[in-house]
Amino acid sequence: MTLDIRFDFERRDRIGFIEAIWGADKSIDQLKRVSKEVLSQKEVVFITRVSKYKAKHLLGIHENAKFYEEAKCLIIGENLKKISSNKKVAIISGGSSDLAVTLEAKLTLEMYGINCESFIDVGVAGLHRLLGQIEAIKKYDVLIVCAGMEGALATVIGGLLPQPIIAVPVSVGYGVSKNGETALNSMLSSCSPGISVMNIDNGYGAAMAALRIIKSFS
Amino acid sequence: MTLDIRFDFERRDRIGFIEAIWGADKSIDQLKRVSKEVLSQKEVVFITRVSKYKAKHLLGIHENAKFYEEAKCLIIGENLKKISSNKKVAIISGGSSDLAVTLEAKLTLEMYGINCESFIDVGVAGLHRLLGQIEAIKKYDVLIVCAGMEGALATVIGGLLPQPIIAVPVSVGYGVSKNGETALNSMLSSCSPGISVMNIDNGYGAAMAALRIIKSFS
Amino acid sequence: MTLDIRFDFERRDRIGFIEAIWGADKSIDQLKRVSKEVLSQKEVVFITRVSKYKAKHLLGIHENAKFYEEAKCLIIGENLKKISSNKKVAIISGGSSDLAVTLEAKLTLEMYGINCESFIDVGVAGLHRLLGQIEAIKKYDVLIVCAGMEGALATVIGGLLPQPIIAVPVSVGYGVSKNGETALNSMLSSCSPGISVMNIDNGYGAAMAALRIIKSFS
Amino acid sequence: MTLDIRFDFERRDRIGFIEAIWGADKSIDQLKRVSKEVLSQKEVVFITRVSKYKAKHLLGIHENAKFYEEAKCLIIGENLKKISSNKKVAIISGGSSDLAVTLEAKLTLEMYGINCESFIDVGVAGLHRLLGQIEAIKKYDVLIVCAGMEGALATVIGGLLPQPIIAVPVSVGYGVSKNGETALNSMLSSCSPGISVMNIDNGYGAAMAALRIIKSFS
Amino acid sequence: MTLDIRFDFERRDRIGFIEAIWGADKSIDQLKRVSKEVLSQKEVVFITRVSKYKAKHLLGIHENAKFYEEAKCLIIGENLKKISSNKKVAIISGGSSDLAVTLEAKLTLEMYGINCESFIDVGVAGLHRLLGQIEAIKKYDVLIVCAGMEGALATVIGGLLPQPIIAVPVSVGYGVSKNGETALNSMLSSCSPGISVMNIDNGYGAAMAALRIIKSFS
Amino acid sequence: MTLDIRFDFERRDRIGFIEAIWGADKSIDQLKRVSKEVLSQKEVVFITRVSKYKAKHLLGIHENAKFYEEAKCLIIGENLKKISSNKKVAIISGGSSDLAVTLEAKLTLEMYGINCESFIDVGVAGLHRLLGQIEAIKKYDVLIVCAGMEGALATVIGGLLPQPIIAVPVSVGYGVSKNGETALNSMLSSCSPGISVMNIDNGYGAAMAALRIIKSFS
Amino acid sequence: MTLDIRFDFERRDRIGFIEAIWGADKSIDQLKRVSKEVLSQKEVVFITRVSKYKAKHLLGIHENAKFYEEAKCLIIGENLKKISSNKKVAIISGGSSDLAVTLEAKLTLEMYGINCESFIDVGVAGLHRLLGQIEAIKKYDVLIVCAGMEGALATVIGGLLPQPIIAVPVSVGYGVSKNGETALNSMLSSCSPGISVMNIDNGYGAAMAALRIIKSFS
Amino acid sequence: MTLDIRFDFERRDRIGFIEAIWGADKSIDQLKRVSKEVLSQKEVVFITRVSKYKAKHLLGIHENAKFYEEAKCLIIGENLKKISSNKKVAIISGGSSDLAVTLEAKLTLEMYGINCESFIDVGVAGLHRLLGQIEAIKKYDVLIVCAGMEGALATVIGGLLPQPIIAVPVSVGYGVSKNGETALNSMLSSCSPGISVMNIDNGYGAAMAALRIIKSFS
Repeated sequence: MTLDIRFDFERRDRIGFIEAIWGADKSIDQLKRVSKEVLSQKEVVFITRVSKYKAKHLLGIHENAKFYEEAKCLIIGENLKKISSNKKVAIISGGSSDLAVTLEAKLTLEMYGINCESFIDVGVAGLHRLLGQIEAIKKYDVLIVCAGMEGALATVIGGLLPQPIIAVPVSVGYGVSKNGETALNSMLSSCSPGISVMNIDNGYGAAMAALRIIKSFS
Repeated sequence: MTLDIRFDFERRDRIGFIEAIWGADKSIDQLKRVSKEVLSQKEVVFITRVSKYKAKHLLGIHENAKFYEEAKCLIIGENLKKISSNKKVAIISGGSSDLAVTLEAKLTLEMYGINCESFIDVGVAGLHRLLGQIEAIKKYDVLIVCAGMEGALATVIGGLLPQPIIAVPVSVGYGVSKNGETALNSMLSSCSPGISVMNIDNGYGAAMAALRIIKSFS
Repeated sequence: MTLDIRFDFERRDRIGFIEAIWGADKSIDQLKRVSKEVLSQKEVVFITRVSKYKAKHLLGIHENAKFYEEAKCLIIGENLKKISSNKKVAIISGGSSDLAVTLEAKLTLEMYGINCESFIDVGVAGLHRLLGQIEAIKKYDVLIVCAGMEGALATVIGGLLPQPIIAVPVSVGYGVSKNGETALNSMLSSCSPGISVMNIDNGYGAAMAALRIIKSFS
Repeated sequence: MTLDIRFDFERRDRIGFIEAIWGADKSIDQLKRVSKEVLSQKEVVFITRVSKYKAKHLLGIHENAKFYEEAKCLIIGENLKKISSNKKVAIISGGSSDLAVTLEAKLTLEMYGINCESFIDVGVAGLHRLLGQIEAIKKYDVLIVCAGMEGALATVIGGLLPQPIIAVPVSVGYGVSKNGETALNSMLSSCSPGISVMNIDNGYGAAMAALRIIKSFS
Repeated sequence: MTLDIRFDFERRDRIGFIEAIWGADKSIDQLKRVSKEVLSQKEVVFITRVSKYKAKHLLGIHENAKFYEEAKCLIIGENLKKISSNKKVAIISGGSSDLAVTLEAKLTLEMYGINCESFIDVGVAGLHRLLGQIEAIKKYDVLIVCAGMEGALATVIGGLLPQPIIAVPVSVGYGVSKNGETALNSMLSSCSPGISVMNIDNGYGAAMAALRIIKSFS
Repeated sequence: MTLDIRFDFERRDRIGFIEAIWGADKSIDQLKRVSKEVLSQKEVVFITRVSKYKAKHLLGIHENAKFYEEAKCLIIGENLKKISSNKKVAIISGGSSDLAVTLEAKLTLEMYGINCESFIDVGVAGLHRLLGQIEAIKKYDVLIVCAGMEGALATVIGGLLPQPIIAVPVSVGYGVSKNGETALNSMLSSCSPGISVMNIDNGYGAAMAALRIIKSFS
Repeated sequence: MTLDIRFDFERRDRIGFIEAIWGADKSIDQLKRVSKEVLSQKEVVFITRVSKYKAKHLLGIHENAKFYEEAKCLIIGENLKKISSNKKVAIISGGSSDLAVTLEAKLTLEMYGINCESFIDVGVAGLHRLLGQIEAIKKYDVLIVCAGMEGALATVIGGLLPQPIIAVPVSVGYGVSKNGETALNSMLSSCSPGISVMNIDNGYGAAMAALRIIKSFS
Repeated sequence: MTLDIRFDFERRDRIGFIEAIWGADKSIDQLKRVSKEVLSQKEVVFITRVSKYKAKHLLGIHENAKFYEEAKCLIIGENLKKISSNKKVAIISGGSSDLAVTLEAKLTLEMYGINCESFIDVGVAGLHRLLGQIEAIKKYDVLIVCAGMEGALATVIGGLLPQPIIAVPVSVGYGVSKNGETALNSMLSSCSPGISVMNIDNGYGAAMAALRIIKSFS
């Protein structure tokens, strides 16, 4: 009663991006099969939310596989169809605990050849840290803002800078932080105009939203 | 089957404050009776969340009654046992929509003879408005911060100033603002340390928390 | 005890947009005062979520005021600093019940001089209606997708087209629709990559997110 | 203080189906006792949500036991009273992560002798995958649609095909997916008419709903 | 800036049913226009959740319009393409407060020519009332079970009878009834197997689910 | 398409109590019909949650009807089958805002001939008020405790007195009081042992729980 | 920085019961100290929710300790002050998965010398199982009803029998069962009158509520 | 792709306190690096919510590190800039299960040189335990009240004493305790005036709120 996985290869033609593989709910066997199939089509394999344990099995098979432990991502091969653009993305983060989400976004952008820079630990509890970086951040074309707890960082940046802002709530905190739900609702209710929001911890999605902008406008 | 209301007159002796009367769930008849009883004890009547319609009935009876429509509060007589202190409270608010809550806090403090000042519309979406006032705010002894939507104002102030901060979430906004719940959770999860929080729209409670501090430490 | 409203005039300088006025929680008097102040600075007045009743008072004062009843928006004067761009926005909507949200987005974009077109009633329950329009929609640079109930429209479009997609959940429906919360969560959990999401019914915010993109990339 | 389990043997007479045994909350000892009792009545034992560990203990006792690991189901013996019908059920699934739920439904249907086919990975993010299968699916009499994340698959199929549709939300996803709650609410609020919904991950229940239809109408 | 409503006329061809018009969120003007358009295609107009006030406007225009006040439905013209089947539907209800939901289901079924009967006030708090009717209910081919409060009726019937059961939670009750949410969750978690569930108060949807079964199996 | 209401007359025989009529969701016409039917069986009519407006219609028809406005209850005729017991119930309430719930319980008990007394405004914010009454309350056989806001009254009484305690959360308060949900959860999580809890505002139910005890144990 | 635990020995005098020790959140060391202290006062030690691992440590110290693994309770010594009453309690349960809760209630009652009997697996999905026992259950003085999933058992029994009913929702089930929350809300919203409810899984509390009744009325 | 952590050293200048390090979401490597950096600035390292396992690694490196296992806190070095004040803080707790939260608050206060005392196990279920300590508690200047379950302790103390009260809900309990959410909402809705509330389990934050008061008013 084996049931085959069908990969969405045509996505590349339709929207210009390949399908990423969600590693958390797949078995090692499923990951092996889908990786093999993707590679046979000369496409890059990009697996997100993959545990170290699962990653080891794939690293053992594919020489050109690379596991990014802190980002929980595994890449096999290389994405040959990069986006040609000189646009740059800044990934801004409220605290060092947001690292995994930040790195997932960074890896995704770099896989498509997009230049990006991280601005870590510029949370609003120490406003000077943010204000000291604001001139540097101003030079980037799209801003991805990751923040847990109360997520106020997105609002403050949204009031200071005119670029497209993609906010990512992070499941850091305790009690009423509710695994990122408070940061999410806070970002959606922001009094700064035009901030758009992703699902909790969805660094990959934020990168994709940035790529949609860069690809369409370059 | 009439049931009498018993007012907590001894509260003055125990904790130094009189009981405020919650006007929203009481009938006009109940408000009349309890007011009469309180006045007969030479105490001031302080009713919160009272509608214009209910207020009219009490204004018709008591010459020394005063209705504060925007604050939805009604005061009959005067509080003769004020708190003797030169401490000052700043009430800071993110937007003009927080007015009713702000005023409820102000009225309460003034009834006890405490000096207070309002700083309105200093929301974080326009950070300069806040930063321009920060030196002025620094001079106050207790800060009450009222904010709706994502409530980021409390976090930003908490990171800039050392005073006691009492945050009041306000039921302004729509959608995921959830009638103040998002501002509440945001304030409770604040990455700025030592911010204490009141129930949604509880301007009266914030003033009482400030009064507890001032009374105990003056 | 009157408290003045301070308008964020510097926002124009910082991020290039003016502050919109949230009409729902302001009194007629507050709306009058803030309008007068904004006009005195030669800026356009843009009030959202304003009732017909409140609008009448402002229409009586300002000759150049215009009320858009279905969008619940009121504009006084004209925005003289438009964005110069030939980029176009498509506003796509699942049902005719989403009209108010759709129109709020449209008005906002047009106020900044951006060309936009509405594609109404292309819900996924009748997939052919959407597929019949997909070639037309393909020509637009940014897509705003409004949908209530289960919000599946954003996912289907996200899988078919490569542009930036700004999804707006709409508070249409009953029972577990939960006033737009289900559409919101559905859009945030979308299996199509890179869809960014706004607060429920936030047509204005979606337009602002599109303007951020167009302004930064034109 | 041993407390006996009483199995609902009369269910076969009343509604034509046997009771399945919910394995998750039962101890190995309880599973052993109830299995023995059921077998002594010449009925088939069908245990759902049973771990590999618990299954091993039963496989060691009963030669004719079979454990379906991916479906987390264990069957001992054979169901001798099958439903005589040539009606067929299609089980359609949005992603390979829905596999366990899909298989639970499939096993249940096959135990009653009903012909069924799985259509896996036809999620709406790649609409062509679904549209390419729609003619094949059209030939089935009842459709079970399993989907996690935003659950849009049920709506799209409901708008394209006239058969009875039983939707099963799956607890796949993260953040606002809320362990299947978003897919559930999405399916219940579907703008496609007449879709009926089961509890999250309830593949067994979906099969039972299909069996009720087939049994009553064959 | 008028935006046309596009009706899904092809739905009849695809799935055999016409689109019902959701009256609650549409303006009188929108209802007038869509009704006119539907009638021009020789189709029946079926509007659900329409207020008495809105209905009056349509009754004034169309002679062959009929308003069912308790069901909050309005029908203009006649559905000429009925379903030819001798299958019968029983609509069972826990209390007289569920009337509107019950009637909406009944009207929908009758519009398609399906024979149906209502069994009202057979709630489980008085089990004998239900047991006294069970033989009569047994003769129907599909059972629609409407219940508010704790929704236990669906479970009890599901344990007694083998037919397809479509459960409709009703927004009757107070406190933790949560406008039907408790009945909904209760029906979804039912310990009786194979009960499928609709959105809260969705009598129309339940009828459509029944029609899908009857149409496919007759 | 009239649908008759069937009253549960046999409830008197089964459990010794008559069915109360829930007035909130019934039309005037339904109330008239069910009242007539109940009276024809020589039973007392007891309607809860009935508005003044609906009550007037019934008062106009039945001479022996009595409307208790603050309790929102209407009684027609007299309950002739009272419970013979000398047991007494104390109804204790945290604030005068809980009045309607308190009175609903009182009326229900008195209809069955049970002696009861109200202890109003003994909230825990003024502990002395409660402690001053504790000796008096000690003499009652069953305690019904009604409280809104944080519902702490039930816990304090539960720690002081040994009688059966039936706690009723009341939908008084604002913000996180959540219409009684916080009081409900607070009572259910009480650190005092053996407190049993009713639905929010369910004064009638609390009286019925007390009657079950008194009837079974007298 | 050791902090002593103070046991509430006076509870026995005030309300006649001893304090049970909540084992889940206490360390082994804390359990050891509090047990020693309680025993030194010649009282029985009754620990609930204690793991096998923690229990072992206490069994090693106290010869007269007994661990009830399925109930997760540990008793050291004997309760010498039993309640003298011939009243009997029936503990009725919907499924064998409710066993731990059922046993916790049983142990508590027996510790106070109260006669009780368990009726297991009489869930409403197989109504006959319940109806077959109803005459037996009728003979008991207080009914404790434990049920998970949709909790309908309490409603059905409440409609059939006149005794005091204490309902205990059980955290059995999956998906929308929400760890017992659905059963809880279902029991609180029951259409059967006078059912009182405990916190989820609170078998101990249910027994205490029964003991309050029996003690006060015997 | 290493990303540096930037510590907020200027916080000491702005608000007079150092930044505490949230240990739960940081890796051992991150903790090592940030500790080293902080020590190099002659500041004390204060890590909260740090596991025994992580603590061991730091204890191995720093001789002057001390791990407080029950408080889950680790301190390296000494805070040389204490607050000079003779004000005292009482930390009052409802049960011994609140220990970790209580100790986190105590450690924080002592690090700043503030005198504080713990009052443990004075829960309201045994009111006499609290009343017996009330005279002692009266002598403290600020009260921190920690309580889980229904959190009634804060309300009772708030009604008895005039000092500033900082309430900390604790995630102790089960079922509807909801990991501290019920205690939180209970404290926020308290009928005692002027109680301010912290996030669930936030002992550190409560201490910081107390320090803000003491520092500003000494």
